[in-house]
Amino acid sequence: MKIEIVENVLKYNKDQANLNRELFKKNNVLVINLLSSPGAGKTSLIIETIKRLKQKKNIGVIEGDISSTHDAQKIKEYISEVVQINTGGSCHLNATMVAKAVEKFNLENLNLILIENVGNLICPVGFDLGEDFKVVVSSVSEGDDKPVKYPPVFIKSNEVILNKTDMLESSDFSIDFFRKKVNELNHGAEIIEVSCKTGSGLEKWINWITDRDIKNN
Amino acid sequence: MKIEIVENVLKYNKDQANLNRELFKKNNVLVINLLSSPGAGKTSLIIETIKRLKQKKNIGVIEGDISSTHDAQKIKEYISEVVQINTGGSCHLNATMVAKAVEKFNLENLNLILIENVGNLICPVGFDLGEDFKVVVSSVSEGDDKPVKYPPVFIKSNEVILNKTDMLESSDFSIDFFRKKVNELNHGAEIIEVSCKTGSGLEKWINWITDRDIKNN
Repeated sequence: MKIEIVENVLKYNKDQANLNRELFKKNNVLVINLLSSPGAGKTSLIIETIKRLKQKKNIGVIEGDISSTHDAQKIKEYISEVVQINTGGSCHLNATMVAKAVEKFNLENLNLILIENVGNLICPVGFDLGEDFKVVVSSVSEGDDKPVKYPPVFIKSNEVILNKTDMLESSDFSIDFFRKKVNELNHGAEIIEVSCKTGSGLEKWINWITDRDIKNN
Repeated sequence: MKIEIVENVLKYNKDQANLNRELFKKNNVLVINLLSSPGAGKTSLIIETIKRLKQKKNIGVIEGDISSTHDAQKIKEYISEVVQINTGGSCHLNATMVAKAVEKFNLENLNLILIENVGNLICPVGFDLGEDFKVVVSSVSEGDDKPVKYPPVFIKSNEVILNKTDMLESSDFSIDFFRKKVNELNHGAEIIEVSCKTGSGLEKWINWITDRDIKNN
């Protein structure tokens, strides 16, 4: 009984995700679902991305949190198209929440939607939101063993951002170990090393997005 | 229907947690359930605790992970009483998993069991394991806004460890803001500032445990 209900929940989510995807495609909007542990730097990455792209692209942000509007407020200092989703305790976003948030955007005008999922390296992985790409943000301060301990998010993501590389010198994080473990799980995912604090590596991330922007290609 | 099943799961867990608690009390074992984001330093805290207490206390460790035996192997370098639980993808430990793990210990001989929950700041909060205390480990590198963004774990924990205080100088983390937000959620929880890297503050944490050790009091 429990398994059947979980399957129904996932089936219902998949159907809604497919509707979201159709809507995004029709409007030629690139949609990226950002996944990470709490505090890995999703909000900082979004802000640095907006700073570098807002002259050229129209960007919308969907902020997922279990409560508060803390991150949405930070992002509103940079752009107006921000929608906060409070999950009411739920540990991940789902496609229905995203569908409702997207109603607040004028999709025809947008190039890019960045979705900041709830800070959780496990639960959001199983919930398709209709995005084009899942990107996992890992950070040096979390340690180099995250791919070993949380494989699914690294398997399912299309791209891996390693943030807080400014901390590399003062930590025992091994880039080689991290790369090796990510590659064992996911041959296709490129690892982009960045520091949102110093700006290092962000150009590569911006190029990765720009290469995928559908309206301008 | 879904709500009813969730309630049944929680009721079943609570019943098993109460059985665990009885067993722990009968054997005068202090049990601490450690909760945190991935990479906040639960494993390091456990290792530093073992180093400082193993001459005086018999310690058992239960390691919760969605997969791998990575952390259990690290801890086995220091003590032999380590049981790994692999949740098979589940985002939290439950009381039944802990009951099975505890069968591997000789409880009469133990003073203290440290349970390292799955790295997740949300889902483990609702699942009583029969522990005496829930302790949340937050870290400077995650940012000072964690109590704002993840209130339940700070509300439900008996004690807050702030780890990685060696990073305070090079970050914009505000201890005052963090303390204020924790206190707003939970008047009773003391905040112990530690650095597992430098050893700073660990004495206070060790005293906190020693004050609560039932066999020796």
